[in-house]
Amino acid sequence: MTIDTISENRAFGGVQGIYGHRSRTLDCDMRVSVFVPPQAESGPRPVLFWLSGLTCTEENFTVKAGAQRLAAEYGLIVVAPDTSPRGDGVPDDDAYDFGQGAGFYVNATEAPWSVHFHMYDYVVDELPALVFGHFPARDDRQGIFGHSMGGHGALTIALRNPETFRSVSAFSPIVAPTQCPWGTKALGGYLGPDRKTWEDHDATALINGGAAVPGEILIDQGTADEFLEEQLKPHLFTEACEKAGQPLRLRMQEGYDHSYYFIASFMKDHFTHHAGFLLD
Amino acid sequence: MTIDTISENRAFGGVQGIYGHRSRTLDCDMRVSVFVPPQAESGPRPVLFWLSGLTCTEENFTVKAGAQRLAAEYGLIVVAPDTSPRGDGVPDDDAYDFGQGAGFYVNATEAPWSVHFHMYDYVVDELPALVFGHFPARDDRQGIFGHSMGGHGALTIALRNPETFRSVSAFSPIVAPTQCPWGTKALGGYLGPDRKTWEDHDATALINGGAAVPGEILIDQGTADEFLEEQLKPHLFTEACEKAGQPLRLRMQEGYDHSYYFIASFMKDHFTHHAGFLLD
Repeated sequence: MTIDTISENRAFGGVQGIYGHRSRTLDCDMRVSVFVPPQAESGPRPVLFWLSGLTCTEENFTVKAGAQRLAAEYGLIVVAPDTSPRGDGVPDDDAYDFGQGAGFYVNATEAPWSVHFHMYDYVVDELPALVFGHFPARDDRQGIFGHSMGGHGALTIALRNPETFRSVSAFSPIVAPTQCPWGTKALGGYLGPDRKTWEDHDATALINGGAAVPGEILIDQGTADEFLEEQLKPHLFTEACEKAGQPLRLRMQEGYDHSYYFIASFMKDHFTHHAGFLLD
Repeated sequence: MTIDTISENRAFGGVQGIYGHRSRTLDCDMRVSVFVPPQAESGPRPVLFWLSGLTCTEENFTVKAGAQRLAAEYGLIVVAPDTSPRGDGVPDDDAYDFGQGAGFYVNATEAPWSVHFHMYDYVVDELPALVFGHFPARDDRQGIFGHSMGGHGALTIALRNPETFRSVSAFSPIVAPTQCPWGTKALGGYLGPDRKTWEDHDATALINGGAAVPGEILIDQGTADEFLEEQLKPHLFTEACEKAGQPLRLRMQEGYDHSYYFIASFMKDHFTHHAGFLLD
């Protein structure tokens, strides 16, 4: 497994890199953003995976979230992959919420998506192996977070892999994709009509089915988010967590929207949350 | 003088806006980024103008610099204009370093640039009037900073208007445009062959000619900046300041390049510098 350096920039005493690699899971070339903090010079560091939302690449979070400052403060490696397989040989759809840029962190079983769209396996298996093979990251200290579709990815992946991920948080996540238009379109398109197969990719359904993460989940949600009512529905997740006894801190942030300005505004609190689980 | 709201996003308790207006100085429609911090709810705040570098619009600084967090911490309004007049009716050049995106903060006297390219007057007169007319900004508390071509703009504008600007700083500025390829091309193109007219737009020449700013100037410069030797030449400015007795703190930052990752890494120190002059 080799990687190519596309760019490396010194930032906050560490190195912000964009790397390219051939993914066997997705059968295409992929890019990934990795920030290595200055503390990594003296030994391996915990690693925090960020999953982005619809239409994003590895770049949006990297340039807009203000995460490098915090990663350097806490000594965390931060990894941000793309949101789907990419390239001319990869199927696509004209819609912004399906196909390239909208992998939804599942393993597609429906043609033509089933050849490349295995973002669940990519994030859970191939990407961590790539990171641990090339960067000074500790595989016993992993956290995951994300935004919107990526918040959905972070929650479902953490709930299905509680022994891997010590910490999870999300900004404006799609918490119940089986119950919103974005989710039913994507899960139906990638997994087919059997809704039973969708539940493994629905954080609310996973909690209702007995899944849990070891610590508290942190979620920030803007009250002025245009997608709040129709797509995000955080109350469904709150109800499930309350019933199941899963600790959850959902913060409704007055006047904030769905943008990276919202994300950047509360990024510090998410790093503090993860650092509490990932640092000794 | 009216403005249109293109977007407003809550960020760090304040509001990050992008606004459009018709500029009479530039005879075209312009966009400007304005962040208003939460402290403005209880009264007018100091204002810090940011001037961007070649190829930038009002957007680069706004999404990449991480400035909103600091502006909210110090209670400063931050204004970032575009780098030139824009639009189909405005002359342009195929090069990245001349024409649209490369106004160089001068008033062009050469055709065809002389009709629209009056970025000096725009930044010194029309933009502040717009800001003071529409936002709770204090006109007795103004600072200015910028990057590369915008660092050149900030230094020259501060040196020529020391009673207006209480504080100035720059990231990797073009300090001696009369002595580097970017500068001689732009000043020759916009102002014509008489090099005497160029000196009003050369920070080093201004210092040598007796101009000064009331306080210390802060400059950060990356040692791995690809433009350092040929275009930026900070030692020319250092020598002029030393000879003239102008206080200057030039910091050579080891391993940093010309990117916004460098800018973001030291943005806090620049806000602290300006706050020292702008806050009571």
